[in-house]
Amino acid sequence: MPTPVDLSRLSFNQMTCDTANLTQAIEASAKAGLKWIGVWRHKIKDAPVAQFGKQIRDAGLGVSGLCRGGMFPSLNPADRQRRIEDNLRAIDEAAALGTDTLVMVCGGIPQGSRDLPGARRMVVDGLAAIVPHAKAAGVRIGIEPLHPMYAADRSVVSTLGLANDMADQVGSGQVGVVIDVYHVWWDPQVYREIERSRGRIFGFHVCDWLVPTPHMLMGRGMMGDGIIEIARLREAVDAQGYTGPIECEIFNQEVWDAPIDQTMARMKHTFVTYC
Amino acid sequence: MPTPVDLSRLSFNQMTCDTANLTQAIEASAKAGLKWIGVWRHKIKDAPVAQFGKQIRDAGLGVSGLCRGGMFPSLNPADRQRRIEDNLRAIDEAAALGTDTLVMVCGGIPQGSRDLPGARRMVVDGLAAIVPHAKAAGVRIGIEPLHPMYAADRSVVSTLGLANDMADQVGSGQVGVVIDVYHVWWDPQVYREIERSRGRIFGFHVCDWLVPTPHMLMGRGMMGDGIIEIARLREAVDAQGYTGPIECEIFNQEVWDAPIDQTMARMKHTFVTYC
Repeated sequence: MPTPVDLSRLSFNQMTCDTANLTQAIEASAKAGLKWIGVWRHKIKDAPVAQFGKQIRDAGLGVSGLCRGGMFPSLNPADRQRRIEDNLRAIDEAAALGTDTLVMVCGGIPQGSRDLPGARRMVVDGLAAIVPHAKAAGVRIGIEPLHPMYAADRSVVSTLGLANDMADQVGSGQVGVVIDVYHVWWDPQVYREIERSRGRIFGFHVCDWLVPTPHMLMGRGMMGDGIIEIARLREAVDAQGYTGPIECEIFNQEVWDAPIDQTMARMKHTFVTYC
Repeated sequence: MPTPVDLSRLSFNQMTCDTANLTQAIEASAKAGLKWIGVWRHKIKDAPVAQFGKQIRDAGLGVSGLCRGGMFPSLNPADRQRRIEDNLRAIDEAAALGTDTLVMVCGGIPQGSRDLPGARRMVVDGLAAIVPHAKAAGVRIGIEPLHPMYAADRSVVSTLGLANDMADQVGSGQVGVVIDVYHVWWDPQVYREIERSRGRIFGFHVCDWLVPTPHMLMGRGMMGDGIIEIARLREAVDAQGYTGPIECEIFNQEVWDAPIDQTMARMKHTFVTYC
């Protein structure tokens, strides 16, 4: 039997309810008694970031992470530079929001290219380029490996092993990994790579893999509704010394369409039951 | 520049035109001047298998492989035994058809279970159980690793590395791997694992990964329409001594709906251009 997970670690990643704006997500999270919220960049455009930061703190919440930086690869050097500059802004936003963690979705193969190793090199170069600014801002860069089905168009970082390799290559304590069970559960090497992530796990995300899988993007399930051994993965991550927040992040139209308070209740129940 | 691929290695996997029956696929392959065809089990139900074998030989074609055995995992021991027996029949069908290669889609996580390592053990046990019969029949067992997006419901063998591990565990020259670019292209370790497959590569399949990816099952593209470095993978496979047929296998409604002769022409052109 897995050790019980502490409900106080649960964080509501706001993309679990895309239909709510950030203010609504903050209010619902606080009302549900949560301690954490995970924020997305496209949701902080309505007001100055620092104002959202204050609103979140005033609601008694911490920000577990800001999603997302990354998207480094491009065949055009000027475009790569623009992407790096956007990541510098993301670091500033994370700091203004009051979180020490920026989650990276590193980007796919550039349009017009088939060069996967080249795209991976661009990711490492991009990460290295933003390290000094991240360090100065006190923001950690968490490389989130994405499921291989997103390797072409979202992230060429397809395994936790590769994320660890990249963190090693960049060679800065500012760069680590964010582990989402949805992206890594299938990997025969995942437990070995979780051990290798020790000391640089900057985030942990949960949801479930549904069978049959309804959709490549919108097919995530609530914890317990699928086949992932979430508690086993959570214990493996904890065993490496990770004691931080655990974000629930579910892209699923049915979940999005449910009233947010109902989603909060369901999320809390399935979190303590299956994580 | 990659070395040119020999058109005589091209094999028409009949699931590239699901709308055709086996007789139509044989006739179209012969008319297109191909030397090989890849056959699926559900397409040989219309007549005795040996009769199809003769028809294929009479058309001047060889069978590059029979798809598919596998589907081993089940929580019920009697059901696991039934699945093994079905694989023994598949071996007999391969022999009757005149091919020395049975392609394995090994099966997903059993219904009612979340035990991924357990399912993987059931695959190894199932493979080991059919080796003696495969040996007696002169049929080789090719483990085809499937893309991780199929790990839950189709194959828990998600990487070429795991397929190699399993072949090692079974420890018989009768068991090797079948490499499909669609399933392995994203893997940071694929070139290392192709080297490790030396001497046990029993098949090589091509198609392409489209961007955006239209569908989890039916989203494969014709060679050149996507982002896979097919020629590089083909050369890596060849470099390990593989000189056998190369199957084109495309699940895509648009391709299925095209006239089969048109698909043949397009396949031949894209094969020599992009493989």
